[in-house]
Amino acid sequence: MIYLDNAASTWPKPSEVAEATKAAIVDFGANPGRGGHRLARKAEQTIAETRAKLARLFGVRDPDRFLFCFHTTHATNLAIQGILSTGDHVIISGWEHNAVARPVTWLAQARGVEVSVVEPPESGESGDWLAVIKAAVTNRTKLLITIHGSNVTGEVLPIVDIGHFARERGITYMVDAAQTAGLLPFQLDEWPVDLVAFPGHKGLYGPQGTGGLYVAAGVSLRPLLFGGTGSRSEEVEQPMDWPGGFESGTPNTPGIAGLGAGLDFVLNTGIDQIYQHEMELARLLWEGLKAQEGVRLATEEMPPLPLFSFNLVGLDGQEVAMILDQHYDIAVRAGYHCAALKHRSLGTEAGAIRVSPGYFNTSSEMDAFLRAIAEIRQYLL
Amino acid sequence: MIYLDNAASTWPKPSEVAEATKAAIVDFGANPGRGGHRLARKAEQTIAETRAKLARLFGVRDPDRFLFCFHTTHATNLAIQGILSTGDHVIISGWEHNAVARPVTWLAQARGVEVSVVEPPESGESGDWLAVIKAAVTNRTKLLITIHGSNVTGEVLPIVDIGHFARERGITYMVDAAQTAGLLPFQLDEWPVDLVAFPGHKGLYGPQGTGGLYVAAGVSLRPLLFGGTGSRSEEVEQPMDWPGGFESGTPNTPGIAGLGAGLDFVLNTGIDQIYQHEMELARLLWEGLKAQEGVRLATEEMPPLPLFSFNLVGLDGQEVAMILDQHYDIAVRAGYHCAALKHRSLGTEAGAIRVSPGYFNTSSEMDAFLRAIAEIRQYLL
Repeated sequence: MIYLDNAASTWPKPSEVAEATKAAIVDFGANPGRGGHRLARKAEQTIAETRAKLARLFGVRDPDRFLFCFHTTHATNLAIQGILSTGDHVIISGWEHNAVARPVTWLAQARGVEVSVVEPPESGESGDWLAVIKAAVTNRTKLLITIHGSNVTGEVLPIVDIGHFARERGITYMVDAAQTAGLLPFQLDEWPVDLVAFPGHKGLYGPQGTGGLYVAAGVSLRPLLFGGTGSRSEEVEQPMDWPGGFESGTPNTPGIAGLGAGLDFVLNTGIDQIYQHEMELARLLWEGLKAQEGVRLATEEMPPLPLFSFNLVGLDGQEVAMILDQHYDIAVRAGYHCAALKHRSLGTEAGAIRVSPGYFNTSSEMDAFLRAIAEIRQYLL
Repeated sequence: MIYLDNAASTWPKPSEVAEATKAAIVDFGANPGRGGHRLARKAEQTIAETRAKLARLFGVRDPDRFLFCFHTTHATNLAIQGILSTGDHVIISGWEHNAVARPVTWLAQARGVEVSVVEPPESGESGDWLAVIKAAVTNRTKLLITIHGSNVTGEVLPIVDIGHFARERGITYMVDAAQTAGLLPFQLDEWPVDLVAFPGHKGLYGPQGTGGLYVAAGVSLRPLLFGGTGSRSEEVEQPMDWPGGFESGTPNTPGIAGLGAGLDFVLNTGIDQIYQHEMELARLLWEGLKAQEGVRLATEEMPPLPLFSFNLVGLDGQEVAMILDQHYDIAVRAGYHCAALKHRSLGTEAGAIRVSPGYFNTSSEMDAFLRAIAEIRQYLL
């Protein structure tokens, strides 16, 4: 199988990831922090080590700035529902994934939160973004949310510039790093970014069922899940201890152990090396597709992330994906990619085909993909 | 190590659990239902199979009545926050875990939900429970929540009788089955129970990071997490598709695969066989402790679940647990067990020692535990 759906979930994983997950189930099934015994302490230690690796990767001194979540959607909901209250105004970009667009839409309907969706009319330059964001700010703007890299086009937003503007205005700024964590360098201790939601199972090479939320010191959050925290167990009020009070319930220790192994892989390989290899593969795809007739790429320029979307003129994207799967054993993703807003602005409401090579792909696989697309065009058109 | 903390998390797991989890990471890293390719379909099939096994275990014909959650606390919050609105009244028992007590306490403070905590003054007979529940009902009572089996004393509540009463009054009834799922028989298609929250990593022998919520047909719920569902991806409003609209975000497919293996173990071994073996072990502990001087058991009668708490008169429970861990390599749990309310009514505010044997314990381990307790009493008192 040629797997080109790494933007959904990286695959394969480094072998250590499955091994570490398995070892955690076999060796320390117990509940971290909820009992003083040896198995519980081993679980606790594994979680602390993975938190420390996250801190290292994201350029943060204090590992406790990271809350473990079960996926990016959990992280975005914890942040959005934990910050916004009735009467608040939130600004989101038009590139947001449904993991952001849907919780804010719900808060607008159910809790009287006001939502603005902004997107520059043409270019995606820093100044264009700042202009539309500035124009949307009101005196009730509490939160600004942008994706870091689009999961449809691979375009990247100028999050540091946007963050400086947000900080100037006293607006909390959240970034959805679903497509960039593990690929682009982060220096969160230096950057004016307050919250970063990220998955464990994409660029960090952990297993599914993992993710996290970075929360800068001083950001005030309400918990999303209330329950046992292993601390102040005698009180029926949720303890606001950090981070425990925001991680109620038995953690996914096996998944977190696997995520630790994934982070080791990323830290040891180096994100530069991972990024360069994936971009080389993406360039082969981009240039090979561009050279073919009847291929419509979603953006004019090749994006700075190893993922992009395209259509074959006159062919249905879902059908092409199905043929790639069944006749060529090639996995891509067709459809909306949970990004309704972005597809509307691209004019690809009918969906598109997304390709996203990963670190374990090879250039000969890219050639095979390009040949498959050429054949499909030839036979179907 | 002698592991007597199975009420927190069963350990060890059947070897197939870790194998199935690992295989899911290795074989199908992709995102179920979010791409049409082969790896995505394999993930989807695994999730469907595990859902069907849950349905079989709980006596439910329609597997889609089960929502996958990441732990019991996720399930209780989904139910509680998804049902109660401002002005509603909720009744909970005084035996509830913080996974129930804390979300209702928060709703009382933040959303104007009214909470009643009920517990019979003396006995725990069915009539006593019905009397205190009846007395608490108002015309605004929307939800009634009781734990099935206490995680402190192992006592069991008459949930079918309580359910009949709730149904008569048109009150939604939720059961927290954290200590009973996989140990006691359920016939949810026949029982007047609307919601059941349960963990994957206790009596179902799955890995941590798994759990679920059973929702009877006709119960109306709001989602807790809003985001991508793999369906109607082009809409920014959360699709209310069932169950997908309530399981936003990439599922923990490896964990769910492991849970499937745990369910196979439970279904093939038989819950009667598991229950009987664990109760025999618990009886050895109970009678052995009862025969020792200075042991104060939390209840007069041996409870119908293989877990109970006790104190050694004159000794601190945490200290005893630490000695058991460090000198005898025996894992128990001391403290409040996230059940503040229950410890208040037991008069064990200082915490207690809980023992909970599991299916893989042996009678000679019970003897070793009893000898350790006798020695600790002898040396410390």
